[in-house]
Amino acid sequence: MDMSENDLRQALFEKQAALDAQAEAVRELKAAGSDTDAVHAAVLALNALKLDKSSIEKQLQAVVSGSSSGAVTRETFRQAVINTLERRLFYLPSFKIYGGFAGFYDNGPPGCAVKSNILSFWRQHFVLEENMLEVDSPCVTPEIVLKASGHVDKFTDLMVKDEKTGTCYRADHLLKDFCKEKLEKDLSISPEKAAELRHVLAVLDDLSSEELGAKIKEYGITAPDTKNSLSDPYPFNLMFQTSIGPSGLSPGYMRPETAQGIFVNFKDLYYYNGNKLPFAAAQIGQAFRNEISPRQGLLRVREFTLAEIEHFVDPEDKSHPKFPEVAKLEFFMFPREQQVSGQSAKKMLLGEAVSKAIVNNETLGYFIGRVYLFLTSLGIDKERLRFRQHLANEMAHYAADCWDAEIECSYGWIECVGIADRSAYDLRAHSEKSAVPLVAHEKFVEPREVEKLVIAPVKKELGLAFKGNQKMVVEALEAMDEKEAMEMRSNLESQGEVEFFVCTLGKNVTINKNMVAIFKEIKKEHQRVFTPSVIEPSFGIGRIMYCLYEHSFYTRPSKAGDEQLNVFLFPPLVAPIKCTVFPLVQNQQYEEVAKQIAKSLTAAGISYKIDMTGTSIGKRYARTDELGVPFAITVDSTTSVTIRERDSKEQIRVNVDEVASVVKEVIDGHSTWADVLWRYPTHSSSAPVDE
Amino acid sequence: MDMSENDLRQALFEKQAALDAQAEAVRELKAAGSDTDAVHAAVLALNALKLDKSSIEKQLQAVVSGSSSGAVTRETFRQAVINTLERRLFYLPSFKIYGGFAGFYDNGPPGCAVKSNILSFWRQHFVLEENMLEVDSPCVTPEIVLKASGHVDKFTDLMVKDEKTGTCYRADHLLKDFCKEKLEKDLSISPEKAAELRHVLAVLDDLSSEELGAKIKEYGITAPDTKNSLSDPYPFNLMFQTSIGPSGLSPGYMRPETAQGIFVNFKDLYYYNGNKLPFAAAQIGQAFRNEISPRQGLLRVREFTLAEIEHFVDPEDKSHPKFPEVAKLEFFMFPREQQVSGQSAKKMLLGEAVSKAIVNNETLGYFIGRVYLFLTSLGIDKERLRFRQHLANEMAHYAADCWDAEIECSYGWIECVGIADRSAYDLRAHSEKSAVPLVAHEKFVEPREVEKLVIAPVKKELGLAFKGNQKMVVEALEAMDEKEAMEMRSNLESQGEVEFFVCTLGKNVTINKNMVAIFKEIKKEHQRVFTPSVIEPSFGIGRIMYCLYEHSFYTRPSKAGDEQLNVFLFPPLVAPIKCTVFPLVQNQQYEEVAKQIAKSLTAAGISYKIDMTGTSIGKRYARTDELGVPFAITVDSTTSVTIRERDSKEQIRVNVDEVASVVKEVIDGHSTWADVLWRYPTHSSSAPVDE
Repeated sequence: MDMSENDLRQALFEKQAALDAQAEAVRELKAAGSDTDAVHAAVLALNALKLDKSSIEKQLQAVVSGSSSGAVTRETFRQAVINTLERRLFYLPSFKIYGGFAGFYDNGPPGCAVKSNILSFWRQHFVLEENMLEVDSPCVTPEIVLKASGHVDKFTDLMVKDEKTGTCYRADHLLKDFCKEKLEKDLSISPEKAAELRHVLAVLDDLSSEELGAKIKEYGITAPDTKNSLSDPYPFNLMFQTSIGPSGLSPGYMRPETAQGIFVNFKDLYYYNGNKLPFAAAQIGQAFRNEISPRQGLLRVREFTLAEIEHFVDPEDKSHPKFPEVAKLEFFMFPREQQVSGQSAKKMLLGEAVSKAIVNNETLGYFIGRVYLFLTSLGIDKERLRFRQHLANEMAHYAADCWDAEIECSYGWIECVGIADRSAYDLRAHSEKSAVPLVAHEKFVEPREVEKLVIAPVKKELGLAFKGNQKMVVEALEAMDEKEAMEMRSNLESQGEVEFFVCTLGKNVTINKNMVAIFKEIKKEHQRVFTPSVIEPSFGIGRIMYCLYEHSFYTRPSKAGDEQLNVFLFPPLVAPIKCTVFPLVQNQQYEEVAKQIAKSLTAAGISYKIDMTGTSIGKRYARTDELGVPFAITVDSTTSVTIRERDSKEQIRVNVDEVASVVKEVIDGHSTWADVLWRYPTHSSSAPVDE
Repeated sequence: MDMSENDLRQALFEKQAALDAQAEAVRELKAAGSDTDAVHAAVLALNALKLDKSSIEKQLQAVVSGSSSGAVTRETFRQAVINTLERRLFYLPSFKIYGGFAGFYDNGPPGCAVKSNILSFWRQHFVLEENMLEVDSPCVTPEIVLKASGHVDKFTDLMVKDEKTGTCYRADHLLKDFCKEKLEKDLSISPEKAAELRHVLAVLDDLSSEELGAKIKEYGITAPDTKNSLSDPYPFNLMFQTSIGPSGLSPGYMRPETAQGIFVNFKDLYYYNGNKLPFAAAQIGQAFRNEISPRQGLLRVREFTLAEIEHFVDPEDKSHPKFPEVAKLEFFMFPREQQVSGQSAKKMLLGEAVSKAIVNNETLGYFIGRVYLFLTSLGIDKERLRFRQHLANEMAHYAADCWDAEIECSYGWIECVGIADRSAYDLRAHSEKSAVPLVAHEKFVEPREVEKLVIAPVKKELGLAFKGNQKMVVEALEAMDEKEAMEMRSNLESQGEVEFFVCTLGKNVTINKNMVAIFKEIKKEHQRVFTPSVIEPSFGIGRIMYCLYEHSFYTRPSKAGDEQLNVFLFPPLVAPIKCTVFPLVQNQQYEEVAKQIAKSLTAAGISYKIDMTGTSIGKRYARTDELGVPFAITVDSTTSVTIRERDSKEQIRVNVDEVASVVKEVIDGHSTWADVLWRYPTHSSSAPVDE
């Protein structure tokens, strides 16, 4: 919140009031036929006020557009990135020849390669290193599964309709746009009004359907395209619905997340893991969200790739043996308290965050650390990455703790990975719905003595008293929890009988001492049966990719200095193509060498692009810098060639038969560019290859 | 067709007729009060006939069940494979805790790993080696795209409904089951009837809705579960339908193939490829088929992974520069002619098949060869793999040629890869629907002179003659093709006027000499514009996986000889886990070594399983043989360990710090097991590791 903006709004508001009063005074003087000197003086005062007001307006305008000029810069940067991405086919709007469909994008060839590299690394970094159990379940999901998970009832956004055309809008988006527009463009609103609008923006996500509707009415918000009036907000389920089989009787949905496909398999996976906890299952796949009106380009789409981990753990022991490996990591964390008290994210040691209980437990902390390592290995800038804890009102009621890995890009801070301790919620929900117990067992080395509540209805007495209703009364008695049962016991002891509500009968019955025995018993238990907690790191692969594109993009002047060239700074791990092969000039000998090198690259499993055109080397470099290709191999002799590194533009000379292995070494991370730079002669500037 | 079965049916039929006649004769003799001797003789003859009939019945039964006893063996084998696959969680029925849903299966951990290995190899073998352009488009597809491709109108199966319960069945399946059952179980049908049923089975796929309905009525086929009568067959569209966005006005479908996502991007991909042909695009992704009533387990599912290639090529030049690399391959091919003439598939040199024009062109041939190499590298048995050419009636009207890679498994010969020359059909269909020309250009080095037809209507004359209809007549004249136009010109020259049908008017008009000029003109052309042909290899990944499981499965006796142990013979490329690490006995030193080896395996990117249980080594081997793990590392000292190969059970001794690199060498295919066996000491049988 900018204080000077508020002050200026206040000053402007007061000046306007003074101006109105003075204008009224002038009118009155004129109407009363006062003498011209008096009128003249009043008009001069009025003009002075007008000048003051205009000056304040200019200052306010500067302040307001100052914050939006940052937005303009971000917008320009984003446009440059997006232009490059689209031109080089990293992605393209799906079904473009049919005009495109909002919220759907294709990955083109370099985008596909980046995605496939990220997913391979994800499998290496998480599945392989942690021995996770990967599963692959269908996108089409029967209704009962998503009924149990809560998605059928609760996976909704509030929508309003243009009352004449039927066009649909997200209610919160319209209110948000209205408030922002008002704050940025309308200088005449009072400071109180401005504060109110800012408050609405702050609590937007918490507004109920009724509150949203009331605000839309109060502000007179209409349909953006037609200015028609809008319906009341109502929930729209965001799942794509379909029907399984030909009967029309088996509704299904396209899954909104891959997690449910793991939960329903818990029993088999637990068995596969030798009936031992903890273990993690993982799934990579498509998920779907039928957005009301998608915005924000690649960040808010209707179909996307998720990579999700469900780490099942004993709720009584959330320690993690490998936590010490990440405890020393230090990065931006943004705990709940800092957010509420208006502070900003601070660098913090992960070990400290866990030991101070800022992060709920070691396992959650371990995954936060692993996610940090994953994202920064891809090339996400660690200065624009933070882990933000969910506020109490953001978190599901069952969640123990939740942290989002947020990456800053031109759209602001974007949630790219959610890391949540979901406690036992999901497994319990599916246990209840399916009647299949999704539980784990802990066998005790020695049997343990535990106190158990026993409720023993005396059926003979109950039968005499309740006849045909006996069964319902017995069931209701047995269903009492410990507190209810102990209360009944003490009442029976003190009063001899109690009134007891039997919900299946819908009425009270009188229970006396002889009808039920309630007591506690010491039992020997050989095992503990419990529902595991689940810690879920969930990765939005498309969002990570988009942020990575922004973080990797930079421009630098061409050699002639007459234009800016685009470069993607991808690490070899991510780069869609690892190297290019250019014969320096069009000549059969060089082309033969290029083909020979290409063959050895293929054999080494290195993706490359060969460019035999006679275009200048500088132009060919520029073309591939724009694809983020880290190394360019230029064939300028038949025995040795030059390898040029993208960002430093440094060049080394390597023998033809060593090229593939040198490139492979650096790409696989076994050597750095600095290592090979030291080992091979650098290319002298007098040599033919130059940009 | 089995002649002896036919002979027996004929003999049985004749014997039955003789028996009926004799029985009648006996009745008549008795009714006529004939003497007991005569009756006795007649009854003896009758009994002899009965004996004869029974003997023939037995023979026929043996023949009929002889062919089905093969089926029983196959069924037993399949059950053994499936039991192992399900028990070891290669796959499991999806949403099992909710009772499962027909046609949906999950891949469990080893299944996921096998799938991911196959897809990685596919990318290496096709995308990387051929420099293909990979794309990744959404599963949700707007209706207009699938309208253009023909799926909305034609992607159907014929369905019948139980008239009382509404249960749906595939019409052809019911007819097929009826015919098979009748042939296998009913010995009394006449040879003619048997021949008819066999004919129905042969032409089943070609029957129209009416013909299918008529056969179902004729045979009195009823609903299998209820015996209720059935509706007439009607088409059911096999796409899962959904709705995009909240309005309900934008229908969409889950894509039935990934190919359309490539075709609609042709223009951008062609540009990306420098406006040059040929090039190939590829896509891996989910596809969907809302089967009426799925059968055949993993082979006929409602959601599956496809890997598809669309190779775009100049229709006038379908040669392929790399064809010589595959020309020498020899494998089973089953051309159209061999099928029609009742021969079986024969081994053939691919080069010969192309040079003899059995395979339509080199590019198609090249892909057949590459598919052969792909499948056999995975471990598909080349003796149970054939390439079958589509018969004329199987092929789409636009297709130039089509070959299926069929793999034999317990279900019979299964189509796993389709390799089709689809000519220009798909690009033309999308060009028409979208009005975006999806064409390629060939620039001529020298401009070429070509003869062009010119049709020049004389509007003044036509206006005078047809007034308001002039426009329609002009359009109809201009729309004539070359043949029609030249015919009109010669008729106008000889007769001065002609009758001409204008379809937009629905009638003939009279055209005379002065109304239109038709002639040919020599023009200079600088380029050729054409719609590329597309050659499409399309891989059903799930089907390949299932066949691979069957081809890889075998059993061998345990060391004690008291049980059969299951083994999957996966090559390292495919194996879900590359090696296991076993400390020979539970002891801290060995466990430390095991952990150290595990770490080096992770660093080398090799998936492994560590088993620290005290179970006998033999049992631990058996457990992992069943997962197809090729190598087991047993820690039996702190300095060197044994590596055991799965199929030969041979063992070598390797130093602890060399283990990971030795395993990696063999797994990456840089050495064979035979190579390392020669390099390292083999494990002597007196040493502790034994099974």
